[in-house]
Amino acid sequence: MLSNHLQNGMDTAKLMWSRLPKSEVEAEADGSTADEVGRYKKNDGIAVESLDYEVIENCAYRQEQAKRGKIYRAYTVLVKWILALLIGTGTALAAVFINISVENFAGWKYSLTFNIIQKSYFAGFLVYMLINLALVLSSAWIITQFAPAAAGSGIPEIKGYLNGIDTHGILLFRTLIGKIFGSIGSVGGGLALGKEGPLVHIGACIASLLGQGGSTKYHLRSRWLQIFTSERDRRDLVTCGCAAGVAAAFRAPVGGVLFALEEVTSWWRSQLMWRVFFTSAIVAVVVRSAMGWCKSGKCGHFGDGGFIIWDISGGQEDYSFQELLPMAVIGVIGGLLGALFNQLTYYIAYWRRNYLHKRGNRVKVVEVCIVSVITSVISFGLPLFKKCTPCPDTDANSGIECPRRPGMYGNYVNFYCGEKEYNDLATIFFNTQDDAIRNLFSAKTIHEFSAQSLLTFLVMFYSLAVVTFGTAVPAGQFVPGIMIGSTYGRLVGMFVVSFYQKLNIEEGTYALLGAASFLGGSMRMTVSLCVIMVEITNNLKLLPLIMLVLLISKAVGDAFNEGLYEEQARLRGIPLLESRPKYQMRNITAKEACGNQQVVYFPRVVKVMDVLSILKGNNHNGFPVIDHTRSGETLVIGLILRSHLLVLLQSKVDFQHSPLPFSSRDGPIPIRHNLTEFVKPVSSKGLSIHDIHLTPDDLEMYIDLAPFLNPSPYVVPEDMSLTKVYNLFRQLGLRHLLVVPHASRVVGMITRKDLLIEDNEDIAGVELQTTSVSRDHQGDRSLSRGKPDAEQPLLDMVF
Amino acid sequence: MLSNHLQNGMDTAKLMWSRLPKSEVEAEADGSTADEVGRYKKNDGIAVESLDYEVIENCAYRQEQAKRGKIYRAYTVLVKWILALLIGTGTALAAVFINISVENFAGWKYSLTFNIIQKSYFAGFLVYMLINLALVLSSAWIITQFAPAAAGSGIPEIKGYLNGIDTHGILLFRTLIGKIFGSIGSVGGGLALGKEGPLVHIGACIASLLGQGGSTKYHLRSRWLQIFTSERDRRDLVTCGCAAGVAAAFRAPVGGVLFALEEVTSWWRSQLMWRVFFTSAIVAVVVRSAMGWCKSGKCGHFGDGGFIIWDISGGQEDYSFQELLPMAVIGVIGGLLGALFNQLTYYIAYWRRNYLHKRGNRVKVVEVCIVSVITSVISFGLPLFKKCTPCPDTDANSGIECPRRPGMYGNYVNFYCGEKEYNDLATIFFNTQDDAIRNLFSAKTIHEFSAQSLLTFLVMFYSLAVVTFGTAVPAGQFVPGIMIGSTYGRLVGMFVVSFYQKLNIEEGTYALLGAASFLGGSMRMTVSLCVIMVEITNNLKLLPLIMLVLLISKAVGDAFNEGLYEEQARLRGIPLLESRPKYQMRNITAKEACGNQQVVYFPRVVKVMDVLSILKGNNHNGFPVIDHTRSGETLVIGLILRSHLLVLLQSKVDFQHSPLPFSSRDGPIPIRHNLTEFVKPVSSKGLSIHDIHLTPDDLEMYIDLAPFLNPSPYVVPEDMSLTKVYNLFRQLGLRHLLVVPHASRVVGMITRKDLLIEDNEDIAGVELQTTSVSRDHQGDRSLSRGKPDAEQPLLDMVF
Repeated sequence: MLSNHLQNGMDTAKLMWSRLPKSEVEAEADGSTADEVGRYKKNDGIAVESLDYEVIENCAYRQEQAKRGKIYRAYTVLVKWILALLIGTGTALAAVFINISVENFAGWKYSLTFNIIQKSYFAGFLVYMLINLALVLSSAWIITQFAPAAAGSGIPEIKGYLNGIDTHGILLFRTLIGKIFGSIGSVGGGLALGKEGPLVHIGACIASLLGQGGSTKYHLRSRWLQIFTSERDRRDLVTCGCAAGVAAAFRAPVGGVLFALEEVTSWWRSQLMWRVFFTSAIVAVVVRSAMGWCKSGKCGHFGDGGFIIWDISGGQEDYSFQELLPMAVIGVIGGLLGALFNQLTYYIAYWRRNYLHKRGNRVKVVEVCIVSVITSVISFGLPLFKKCTPCPDTDANSGIECPRRPGMYGNYVNFYCGEKEYNDLATIFFNTQDDAIRNLFSAKTIHEFSAQSLLTFLVMFYSLAVVTFGTAVPAGQFVPGIMIGSTYGRLVGMFVVSFYQKLNIEEGTYALLGAASFLGGSMRMTVSLCVIMVEITNNLKLLPLIMLVLLISKAVGDAFNEGLYEEQARLRGIPLLESRPKYQMRNITAKEACGNQQVVYFPRVVKVMDVLSILKGNNHNGFPVIDHTRSGETLVIGLILRSHLLVLLQSKVDFQHSPLPFSSRDGPIPIRHNLTEFVKPVSSKGLSIHDIHLTPDDLEMYIDLAPFLNPSPYVVPEDMSLTKVYNLFRQLGLRHLLVVPHASRVVGMITRKDLLIEDNEDIAGVELQTTSVSRDHQGDRSLSRGKPDAEQPLLDMVF
Repeated sequence: MLSNHLQNGMDTAKLMWSRLPKSEVEAEADGSTADEVGRYKKNDGIAVESLDYEVIENCAYRQEQAKRGKIYRAYTVLVKWILALLIGTGTALAAVFINISVENFAGWKYSLTFNIIQKSYFAGFLVYMLINLALVLSSAWIITQFAPAAAGSGIPEIKGYLNGIDTHGILLFRTLIGKIFGSIGSVGGGLALGKEGPLVHIGACIASLLGQGGSTKYHLRSRWLQIFTSERDRRDLVTCGCAAGVAAAFRAPVGGVLFALEEVTSWWRSQLMWRVFFTSAIVAVVVRSAMGWCKSGKCGHFGDGGFIIWDISGGQEDYSFQELLPMAVIGVIGGLLGALFNQLTYYIAYWRRNYLHKRGNRVKVVEVCIVSVITSVISFGLPLFKKCTPCPDTDANSGIECPRRPGMYGNYVNFYCGEKEYNDLATIFFNTQDDAIRNLFSAKTIHEFSAQSLLTFLVMFYSLAVVTFGTAVPAGQFVPGIMIGSTYGRLVGMFVVSFYQKLNIEEGTYALLGAASFLGGSMRMTVSLCVIMVEITNNLKLLPLIMLVLLISKAVGDAFNEGLYEEQARLRGIPLLESRPKYQMRNITAKEACGNQQVVYFPRVVKVMDVLSILKGNNHNGFPVIDHTRSGETLVIGLILRSHLLVLLQSKVDFQHSPLPFSSRDGPIPIRHNLTEFVKPVSSKGLSIHDIHLTPDDLEMYIDLAPFLNPSPYVVPEDMSLTKVYNLFRQLGLRHLLVVPHASRVVGMITRKDLLIEDNEDIAGVELQTTSVSRDHQGDRSLSRGKPDAEQPLLDMVF
């Protein structure tokens, strides 16, 4: 029909695209982003800008594709799997490197301090504090001077990227480097934060860099990897990277897949599961090999303490129904404390962004240093005020020494104590976090900790975690969350032990449940968190209990606020589109949602000067293109993107002197562009109107936009409810949606059977088949039948 | 704009719907089904028919909704969670009932047989065979006489339902009953099939019945549960039911969630994860409680043998890199044997459907009986030909007795053997399948089985499984798959043990990997299967190995054919829409896909006689409705469904004498229908045109369709590539999609910022907010700007 119109209407051109092979839907049904998103709640910190998700879907691209054929497709699939392998290996190696470094720094720090405090406590404290300060300072320096986007956990930003918002700089090579070394400093420096969130970011960075074939800026590009021009492919890779990050951080391959699925992605495809799964499996194998290599003692202080994994198989395997009540209480506490944590961090981060961090990098560094000193003072000083506890009667079989030997990992830290005594507060405070958690989770150590110590630790560590969150260092919230949760979990466990005297209750099991509850109350994950907890503790029997606790804590937390990542994304001005439309959208139509918006059209052939002035005159990112039939009617022939127009203006090769559109009589449209020119590098700002320099002669020339526009953008009728529009937009990951008036007629109806095409490369055969399935039967006697070109249906007589 | 047109064009009516609150998108963006799907590869067996997914989205419905308000919404949410609780409890109880029954039947059968064979082997065989025959016969009788839809595993049908195709009868109450009792008979009767697939179907049936408030036919309905009129809600419940089924079958709650996510659903929403997770947790708790109750001996023969769970924590925990090669070999074997299994069962099932089962129920019953007798002969007879093996040197600590005591579960079955001897073939063959698997998986029993016995068993059992699949009894493929896989896995393990002498290799671990590989090669699941295997064996340390094996076996299997469920769905004429469009679709436009289809229109006000003749004259399920402006132009005002028209014709209350449309001047449109009238019960055929009886007077009357049509169906422009159309259709789960010509103008553009509405009940405020964000800035200097009503853009001067 369209071609009919145009054949009648236009002298010079047949629109090429209608006869050329169409590109994959992936080209458009792909990414989504905010137009002018920077102005929506724009925050001052990291600039949020829009993503160019829509890859050009036009003649040139399709011709190129058609030329390439089957071998190219096989090559693409192969490269995808090779990239998954590389992402897995890279992320696993990065995780191993960070872990070995942190363990070595921390091990060296603690042995030095323990040696010195044999002589002087004050000197020991000074050395401890200074080492911490130096490590933290190095981290803050890297972040402020070199890679500002590497601060924080990075998960909200990655989540935003996968939702369609490209925060500037989050996936650059410098961010990767900053994140790796920054994490070593901040975690090694003993701050109340973890290395797991940053590892997710690291995985995503590795994936993104591999996907674009290396770093653009540092000229580390490999051409043969540069085949991923569609944002969907890039996003898939980043999803793999996130899964790899979690798999490496917790040695939880299945948890990684589920984390990627549940928490970070916005558009999940079942095909992707398979590739993500493969990446996670690679991570598991590489990490295991590296740890096997380290077992022979080649990694210095790195030993059992490295890699967050706590074998609590010695824990409680059975539970009685009486215990469900205290466990539910743990869930409620987790929900409350988690929601409080989200709220407090939100306020503090808000204040930081709007007041403190506006004063420049020096303030940020000073802030981090103050936090570091406070942390050192508390973790060294508080145990000094605690009286030592005599060691319990040693059970020779348990293998637990009391006090533990200096420089080793384990329970019962002797700190300022006599022989056969230990300091329970130092056991959790003056220790690496991984060891502290191991001690809190430990079974067969009933009454190791006093309630007073646990309570002190809980309050202090909670405050430290709140204050540390949002400082200018890479920071994950998993490990602090587990610390906080396991502390109150163990507290509840202690009460249960003394209340139900006879049951075989392990305080360590309650600590585990507490950890799950706090993470559930703060991050609001369910299945993935459950699997991660099971994988890191290596005890499947507790699964139903973890599920129960998570259900309660998430429900309680949801009553107060959103999850940690959503809150932080909101704060950073990352406008995530949730999967569910808002309730009030049902009362708004698509037209009302557009409001008094003025649509800016382009004609098919446009003067360069006009392009420039239109682009300068507004900041829309997509423009409908219209053409005229001979009878003078307008017809919307497609959508063109600002970014593609800018590329055209910059390259100038498509300028023509004639104001007439390109005609098929002139031969096939020549391809003057490499497709990659139209692709914006990830995390950069892309071309801007100010990069364009045109001579007065250029301004007088014309461009035929037909080959560069997307000829069939998705459309919705003007009175569709916004709920339906939202679902369409969100489910297909769109960026622009045209609102059009009601159609005057229907060309056809697509139903399921039209889409059931057998796997058959012969297209002619396919068409024959789909049309021959059942249409011959369709109502020879049907009363009313719209002829394709009839203006009036036959049933007019009813009126 | 639409209303402008109509105000000018029509004297009598303003279209009510444009000013009424719009209903949720869930009403339409919901289910998908095939029009005339029966004719697409229609098979003779169970009639496939189309689903009425599209719930009426019209004035009446919306008015009713608006009246109900917040309290009703809260009530709906509450009922959803209560239903999840009930589904979990119900499915768990059904699973417990089936397990207890099977264990008791089987236990009684084996102790009786063992007692008799002390006197006569032949008498023992007769008794054994007859008991099996009686059980299997009862199952076949139930299926053929009472619940034909309960045959097979039911997973392909459920998958089809969730993809949008309602196979007749699969979710009825009688199917539920047939499935429960049929499974007991077929599994208790010792056939080579399992009870896990049927449990998924049972969970889905329970969910569906609860969702529609009970069984319609048996008048077991509860009004207060009948609030789920949307197919999306029903589908969500069925998804919960599937997860509950897997959780109950394998005691694998997380595996259940993942199975529902990966294998059965077609539209996954992240909100659903949370509810599915809850259902699975409930199942875990209920099953655990029931088993705790049984431990005290109240359940007869039901003991450790019941419930598929094998603790192989005694297995190999470490592996060397040398072992990766044999493990990869297991993966390859699994892929090959799995693909072969799919292919063989496809051919046999095809033959059965088209030749054997056409001859009626008697043939089906005879077939099942023959299979049962053959199974009995093989499982009893083959071990007799096997020489007995002397018991290995007993390790007092291992707790394994040889031979095991009669009537107990365990390894080393004494069958026709002397003292201190056992028959290794009887240990796996003459045993319940759960025990056989436990024996195959068992660690610390190196060289229990001879290679010859394993090979014999593998060949025999594989053949039996292939032949049994597709007979008229409820049948799952999980347990047979595990049996087959663990047999060749153990074979490979034996060779590895003798080849790499010194390593600490457990044959049981190889058996587990074999089981995973066969299931992966046949069913092609990845993450869910991985988690299920880990949960049923309760050993997390093997996770990376299971992942590796699954990756290989799925890849190998995919090279040959589709997964078992997809193959079977295809065979049964269930046209699943895959998540990925076919490659050749990119070369087809939407218009071409519609082919020479004739669109049948309805006018807004239509004569009853014409409705009847149009409906009789074709079998379309959806019709565009058109109206005229005063200038004579047609305008597509919506889509009406055949099923809704049939309801209107049957109820007659909306007939009117006047051919004029309903006008708002007559007051609000009266609601004469209960919404539930428009909802088709699940698994039934719904109204047919033959159910309509009209008097000649009725035929002369008119209906105004405006209140009953869907005013904004999704539309696509005619030259959109089918790949994009497919994604839209599949992602939103549509049933009809209108193909329309290119628009003549654009009313507005929807971008991300238009969809970012704060959670605010005040709609006026919302509109203010969304429109005030940035539109004031939009290009005062913009050269070209389409006025809403301007026919020509300003940039005409370019031409």
